[in-house]
Amino acid sequence: MTKLNINEFLHGGDYNPEQWLDTPEILNQDFALFKAANINTVTVGVFSWAKLEPKEGNYTFDWLDDIFDRVEKMHGHVILATPSGARPAWLAKKYPEVLRVDSDGIRRKFGGRHNHCISSPIYRQKVHEINTKLAKHFGKRKSLILWHISNEYSSVCYCDLCQENFRKFLQRKYHTLDNLNHAWWTTFWSHYYDSWDEITAPGPKSETGNKGMNLDWNRFVTDQSISFIDNEIEPLKKLTPNIPVTTNMMAGGAELKVFNGLDYQKISKHLDIISWDSYPDWGNDYQSTYQVGMKVSLLNDFYRSLKHQNFLVMESTPSRVNWQNVNRAKRPGMHELSEMQAIAHGSDGALYFQLRASRGSSEMFHGAVIEHRHPQMTRAYHDVKKLGEGLLKIKDAVKTSYVKAKVAIVYSYDNDWALANCESYSSDKKYWTTIKKHYRYFYENDIPVDIIGPDDDFSSYKLIIDPMHFLMSEAYMNKLRTYVKNGGVVVGTYISGVVDDNVLAYMDEWPKQLQEVYGIEPLETDVLYPSQSNSVLWGNTTGNAYDYCETLINHSAEVLGTYQHDFYKDIAAITKNKCSEGYGYYLACRLSYDFLEKFYHDLVLKFDIKPDYPIRKYTKQITIQVRENSKYRYYYVQNWSTNTQSLDITEPLADLFNGIEIIGNKERIHGYETKIYLQRK
Amino acid sequence: MTKLNINEFLHGGDYNPEQWLDTPEILNQDFALFKAANINTVTVGVFSWAKLEPKEGNYTFDWLDDIFDRVEKMHGHVILATPSGARPAWLAKKYPEVLRVDSDGIRRKFGGRHNHCISSPIYRQKVHEINTKLAKHFGKRKSLILWHISNEYSSVCYCDLCQENFRKFLQRKYHTLDNLNHAWWTTFWSHYYDSWDEITAPGPKSETGNKGMNLDWNRFVTDQSISFIDNEIEPLKKLTPNIPVTTNMMAGGAELKVFNGLDYQKISKHLDIISWDSYPDWGNDYQSTYQVGMKVSLLNDFYRSLKHQNFLVMESTPSRVNWQNVNRAKRPGMHELSEMQAIAHGSDGALYFQLRASRGSSEMFHGAVIEHRHPQMTRAYHDVKKLGEGLLKIKDAVKTSYVKAKVAIVYSYDNDWALANCESYSSDKKYWTTIKKHYRYFYENDIPVDIIGPDDDFSSYKLIIDPMHFLMSEAYMNKLRTYVKNGGVVVGTYISGVVDDNVLAYMDEWPKQLQEVYGIEPLETDVLYPSQSNSVLWGNTTGNAYDYCETLINHSAEVLGTYQHDFYKDIAAITKNKCSEGYGYYLACRLSYDFLEKFYHDLVLKFDIKPDYPIRKYTKQITIQVRENSKYRYYYVQNWSTNTQSLDITEPLADLFNGIEIIGNKERIHGYETKIYLQRK
Amino acid sequence: MTKLNINEFLHGGDYNPEQWLDTPEILNQDFALFKAANINTVTVGVFSWAKLEPKEGNYTFDWLDDIFDRVEKMHGHVILATPSGARPAWLAKKYPEVLRVDSDGIRRKFGGRHNHCISSPIYRQKVHEINTKLAKHFGKRKSLILWHISNEYSSVCYCDLCQENFRKFLQRKYHTLDNLNHAWWTTFWSHYYDSWDEITAPGPKSETGNKGMNLDWNRFVTDQSISFIDNEIEPLKKLTPNIPVTTNMMAGGAELKVFNGLDYQKISKHLDIISWDSYPDWGNDYQSTYQVGMKVSLLNDFYRSLKHQNFLVMESTPSRVNWQNVNRAKRPGMHELSEMQAIAHGSDGALYFQLRASRGSSEMFHGAVIEHRHPQMTRAYHDVKKLGEGLLKIKDAVKTSYVKAKVAIVYSYDNDWALANCESYSSDKKYWTTIKKHYRYFYENDIPVDIIGPDDDFSSYKLIIDPMHFLMSEAYMNKLRTYVKNGGVVVGTYISGVVDDNVLAYMDEWPKQLQEVYGIEPLETDVLYPSQSNSVLWGNTTGNAYDYCETLINHSAEVLGTYQHDFYKDIAAITKNKCSEGYGYYLACRLSYDFLEKFYHDLVLKFDIKPDYPIRKYTKQITIQVRENSKYRYYYVQNWSTNTQSLDITEPLADLFNGIEIIGNKERIHGYETKIYLQRK
Repeated sequence: MTKLNINEFLHGGDYNPEQWLDTPEILNQDFALFKAANINTVTVGVFSWAKLEPKEGNYTFDWLDDIFDRVEKMHGHVILATPSGARPAWLAKKYPEVLRVDSDGIRRKFGGRHNHCISSPIYRQKVHEINTKLAKHFGKRKSLILWHISNEYSSVCYCDLCQENFRKFLQRKYHTLDNLNHAWWTTFWSHYYDSWDEITAPGPKSETGNKGMNLDWNRFVTDQSISFIDNEIEPLKKLTPNIPVTTNMMAGGAELKVFNGLDYQKISKHLDIISWDSYPDWGNDYQSTYQVGMKVSLLNDFYRSLKHQNFLVMESTPSRVNWQNVNRAKRPGMHELSEMQAIAHGSDGALYFQLRASRGSSEMFHGAVIEHRHPQMTRAYHDVKKLGEGLLKIKDAVKTSYVKAKVAIVYSYDNDWALANCESYSSDKKYWTTIKKHYRYFYENDIPVDIIGPDDDFSSYKLIIDPMHFLMSEAYMNKLRTYVKNGGVVVGTYISGVVDDNVLAYMDEWPKQLQEVYGIEPLETDVLYPSQSNSVLWGNTTGNAYDYCETLINHSAEVLGTYQHDFYKDIAAITKNKCSEGYGYYLACRLSYDFLEKFYHDLVLKFDIKPDYPIRKYTKQITIQVRENSKYRYYYVQNWSTNTQSLDITEPLADLFNGIEIIGNKERIHGYETKIYLQRK
Repeated sequence: MTKLNINEFLHGGDYNPEQWLDTPEILNQDFALFKAANINTVTVGVFSWAKLEPKEGNYTFDWLDDIFDRVEKMHGHVILATPSGARPAWLAKKYPEVLRVDSDGIRRKFGGRHNHCISSPIYRQKVHEINTKLAKHFGKRKSLILWHISNEYSSVCYCDLCQENFRKFLQRKYHTLDNLNHAWWTTFWSHYYDSWDEITAPGPKSETGNKGMNLDWNRFVTDQSISFIDNEIEPLKKLTPNIPVTTNMMAGGAELKVFNGLDYQKISKHLDIISWDSYPDWGNDYQSTYQVGMKVSLLNDFYRSLKHQNFLVMESTPSRVNWQNVNRAKRPGMHELSEMQAIAHGSDGALYFQLRASRGSSEMFHGAVIEHRHPQMTRAYHDVKKLGEGLLKIKDAVKTSYVKAKVAIVYSYDNDWALANCESYSSDKKYWTTIKKHYRYFYENDIPVDIIGPDDDFSSYKLIIDPMHFLMSEAYMNKLRTYVKNGGVVVGTYISGVVDDNVLAYMDEWPKQLQEVYGIEPLETDVLYPSQSNSVLWGNTTGNAYDYCETLINHSAEVLGTYQHDFYKDIAAITKNKCSEGYGYYLACRLSYDFLEKFYHDLVLKFDIKPDYPIRKYTKQITIQVRENSKYRYYYVQNWSTNTQSLDITEPLADLFNGIEIIGNKERIHGYETKIYLQRK
Repeated sequence: MTKLNINEFLHGGDYNPEQWLDTPEILNQDFALFKAANINTVTVGVFSWAKLEPKEGNYTFDWLDDIFDRVEKMHGHVILATPSGARPAWLAKKYPEVLRVDSDGIRRKFGGRHNHCISSPIYRQKVHEINTKLAKHFGKRKSLILWHISNEYSSVCYCDLCQENFRKFLQRKYHTLDNLNHAWWTTFWSHYYDSWDEITAPGPKSETGNKGMNLDWNRFVTDQSISFIDNEIEPLKKLTPNIPVTTNMMAGGAELKVFNGLDYQKISKHLDIISWDSYPDWGNDYQSTYQVGMKVSLLNDFYRSLKHQNFLVMESTPSRVNWQNVNRAKRPGMHELSEMQAIAHGSDGALYFQLRASRGSSEMFHGAVIEHRHPQMTRAYHDVKKLGEGLLKIKDAVKTSYVKAKVAIVYSYDNDWALANCESYSSDKKYWTTIKKHYRYFYENDIPVDIIGPDDDFSSYKLIIDPMHFLMSEAYMNKLRTYVKNGGVVVGTYISGVVDDNVLAYMDEWPKQLQEVYGIEPLETDVLYPSQSNSVLWGNTTGNAYDYCETLINHSAEVLGTYQHDFYKDIAAITKNKCSEGYGYYLACRLSYDFLEKFYHDLVLKFDIKPDYPIRKYTKQITIQVRENSKYRYYYVQNWSTNTQSLDITEPLADLFNGIEIIGNKERIHGYETKIYLQRK
């Protein structure tokens, strides 16, 4: 795996000089402003295909050479993108098969972006050609530090070729139609296939209800995208083996959920560096800054965990976005707070979309370091400049990585897809929201957490939280059992171990492995309407149970909490099971956070999970994250409130921004401020 | 009309052994569990086409023979379905014209169910062939009691052939284009047709606003479906003339409205037995159990009235469904309460979807008697077993039919379609909700009601309620007048008699027949916004009037109630008219229920409509339904509350479950309990 | 420009005798009822094509001759429509290319109306032919006073020919692809076009995000519609040069926004007379009558301003519409109040849709002067008759035109489109709502206002309000500067002068012209969530600021108000700038109405804008509008409350309805009453 070779935090972001080639004064101004703002990195080439190859086979790289020259003159870095995110018009005209077919069977016309057919041989060939040219031409540039392939992959196409590739994918996977018919349980609704060519992609004009087929389609889309990605990477690796490769990943929606159109856990194996585009709804009127910060924190931990190494926030806005219902700009202080948060969690820089605002078209009003008017007077520019100064002061910290977490939460793409597709329980199962709710305890108590996939190594964790794990393969359950038997602690919940990896129900009894781990078996899931609830008594604590309440068969578990109402009054709701050297805790119902908090508080004490920091805080509005290397620990302390807060420093630490050593209870941290304290090991 | 020949209540339901042919231990377990739960009936063959005819012309019935053998060994019954609800993949591949074309003109691909073209000659031929084979092969089986043709018919297709058949339907109906142009009033918007081939089906890509055309399209879809159904039935009747035929009908939506994609009143004439699939939202958080029970009661009465004979609940869930936003299971006691309710209203059994949960695909999590895991331990299985025991105890009651109702409410499909399509008044006219509101009085007062169509015989009813009868044919109005003149009592309401059966407005004056019946003429309908209302004074009672308030021209009616506000203050709102031997009551406005209650209370007293039961109740949460035969009356008393309630028994009655005779005021009925009292005539 | 030559108010409306040719008694009844109700005008021919040309080239005009005869017999007027709003079935069958293609690329089938291809040569030819025939046949009729071309133009079509015409439009506009690529800023997302045929119309299956392209598509649709309109008008002008031409325009939606599918300001140049269809939601439960009246008032002013001459309300309902969620009829008195309101604002008549209700099809339940049943007994008929009597009494007033307004509010179609399409700020920018809010002050204070376009002459106005003028051309800004320099007063707001007429951002600084006018430059627009706000202090008044708060660079302006909170506390929020002889006021934030009211109150006083009427009112529920000619002023005083109100008459005036002269403080005006006072100049 090729590493990112830098000795300072990256500061900069997406830059589209091709929009300004006719106005060199703009380019001059840009680089002057970059320098003044301590910007050291530009991401170029995203969507530049029409300028790089204006006519088929006619490559014009000179304008980009000039940009490299300018960057190198300021001793900066270039992240070079491959241009496949949007094709030139000539290519769509000559090869219309590169355009995507929608699920209604209608082929799109030229326009938009991120909408190519992921199978088209000619598109792959054209991408391979230009990537090869780019690698040959720019591969030796000393400023080139990273390949940024394409942009925000999110492909799905229903053309005949993609359908044919779906069938090939199924043939590779199942070998025989009998296997496929069993896995998809096609005896249901008379859906038995007697020949491969009877199979079409699921969709509104064909089939939507077959769970196995739907899941395989999700997997195929990832598989086919990986094959597209590998084709992109192949010439880069061949010609520039020392330049690492990334692609920018996504999260979105009101709950800032990780993008699940593609299995990022699988894709990450084909990349050297993980990067993502972070666009939270800072400053909204339905959540506090602290709450928004928690949503982002979870994502940062997710992306860091993909390869268990530092990552990059590849895009973030210096002020506002342009696609929310309300596009509010970051409030004063929020820029530094948010960018430092990412760094605290393992980002090796602060990169923006965009450095220079486009003069026209879709994203012209997306926030930019350099705005259309009075660029040097905007809050965004001042915030960026200030952050640049800060990053310079702490540049030694870049060679650190995050404290190894003792706690992991499992998120599985197969499970996410299967839950969304399972037509039972209730229509919104809130898988990601539930992950976030369990995460919250650790966030509020400054305990590092990894967000891992089912294929990750479990052995280094003291505690694994495995919520709503509806779809579990045999292999996964074996691994989980081994982990617990060897002394691990696992917390499982309602709606787990229901189906295998073909979305076929486990029959007769709950899988043996889970019985061993948890000592119980779920019997019935009571699904509640929004205004209905039960309550659970645990010791002296009563908590609210809602949405899902399972009844359990108890084989060997200790009952910690019991239901207080309804036909399952006094039945076990929370259990604990000793399994060889480890423990399996089971939460049979969805619990209110105050209850979860107490639950995890006890667990963390019992298993000694909480790290001992030389910093005491007096409010949850303060968060503490640690990055360390062999010699030092760096404590990133952030104040998510707008008020000044007090800290106690219990061991001598150095303030990284000013080098002053401090200890005692006089430390103050201002609203939205970030402090970094250095501790020698 | 062929009768259902049974001497016990049917107990069982949909069973898909074809999913388990490779696991005979499952089949063995199933039949052991059936026996233990007093299940005596299996519905097989629904969606089994691919197993019955895996390749074209290659029939494999042996596996189903085995199931018949097993059923007969336990002296049970088989309901055999024809498989047209879902076609095999080979059939769709070889004959793509069997696949439906959507209203956008795009033909669907293979997948789903209930989505064949209803015109396709080859599909009809293939269905006819397999139905013939099934009848030949299984027709002599002693366990075969009922044909279940297809499943939940709900067809509409826009292919060229269906369009051609629509035109033929129109030619048969109108003979000349002049007739059609007049009926559709095509002078409006220049829509005059000069040749039949200019006519296309209404839809989003053609015409949506022509009311006559839309209504004829609705009628055509029913007509074409009946022709499809007749084709299915033809070989069954020929080969097994003594086996009755049914198909399962539907209701749905938040208000549990009867399915109105097809005119069930017309279709029922082509069937021997009526059956329906009953899936209420028991246990929700927006209605009481009592209120949900009323919704279902109305449907049971509707389906019983279709042929004025006992019916079957063909599907119901033993626990939960899988397609609601919140799929809550029945609470303890609800299973017996709900299944006994259907029997009280005339169902000859309790049948479930499904006996054994599918292991995969769309409905795998729909409630089942036999669930995936620990099937004998589930609440559902215990509930089913308990009900089975109860049904055995009351098996003598199966040969009874319902008390003939003296009250009928008219529901007309043509009217429902015309109201939905009339672009006036307000967008949601609440026709079914209004029927339910009038029904409520009778439900709460244990007065049997039939829900009849405009073509039904009126002569046996003392009271006919005819709400919102916007579209009335001349024939209907003549019939209504005759009924009233002969001593009948009718209650009509606002928005009645507005258009004829071509949805052409009645001109000049209100139809003479209605004037005679009601003695008034509606002049203007004041349409109110949701927060607006008027009030009506009747004697000392004031009630709320909302949504619709008509002003009337009074020819001969007695004014019972008058408006209290607005420009129609003091004008008649409720009238009563003597018409020969009968009476016509007219409610000119939509009234609050408390007012309707008083209105019907007076009417019921005046016309001696309330039956005199030997049972007194002290709360509306108790309902009483009667089934009777020549010798006995069976009183089904049900407690819709969760509390124990008291009853007074005023004549000696026998408790059918334990044979004990009772009289007096000490009778107790537990929460959700059903009592059946036997009274010798 | 041809004038409408009438000497009485037009009273009548849409009439479809072709629906009743088989029932001459209906036609006789109609004309008897017209006469009794003082109806003097019928609009005929809308949607009559199938009756006028039942087969291709076979014209049958005799039935319409008869209608002309009948009208002329009663000395009435005919407005004759061209029939292109709906084509006959034979035409669609023979020339399917006349049917529109939707944005999904699917061509529609026959049905509906207003859905022809606006490019189709054959459709244009057929329209030209029938228009020629109509003009030849009816052009000499003395009753013919106005051509009503087509109906409610609202065309957009995506067929290949329209796409080709779009490209031609672009070629005419840009001449070279370089120009187009620059204007559309196609370097963004690699959208550079190297050949014209690569360009397709924007839409869901191609491109939606290019702002320049979207705006040009909007302009093209107007341009292509104008070319269609010109083709319609050409034979009419040639054959009947003295008959003016109109087409009926629209407004709609909950806020009664002017239709913006076509640029009416451009189209108006091709018409002689402006007319519009006025369908407010009178009597709803979310706004007072006074508030609904204000919405309509604004529209009347908009349509009058299109050509700065009197206009016509071409359609209005005598009672109710049939397409709202709740179709409530006008309350007593509302008909006169609403029709007189239009006349007060410059309408030369009261015209209805429809005179006679259709017996069937889509609009059969739309309110009509003559309803289906007991037509002479309806409220609508009585209201119409009463209004007819009133119009007769005031017929002398028809030769007046509206008082020339000293105040204008700018509404720009380009700006409306660009704002809707700008993907920034917040998703609903409320442009029309903002115009209405500024308008409110003048409405409540009886100050006449014009609603003008950016190309209108500014010189006659004392005050121009120019809200949210996001897109401004250089020409516009020059004009605005000249206007102010010459002594004009302008009020501008947040989100103005951001982009040029290609939707390209103004770079470097705010346009010089605007700096000169306002003495400031906007720097950042703070976009607030719905529950967030700031406040502004101006003198002793504090007002709420919400949605948008800009920060300003102040060059030379006087600061009138400042923000009170957040990072821009104490920064200028309201400024005033002296610019040569005039003033530029800038409102940097969206302000609550109470604040705007005070702002305009001061402005109106300062610049002596309020006319001095000889009438004093004591409530805002009274409105006063003036129409005048060289000799007289007519004061239209309307009472929007249901209570009687007092007026003081300070100079002798004559009540136009009864001729009585009045002065003093005893005048009473009843609820919903209209008084017209005559003042000799």
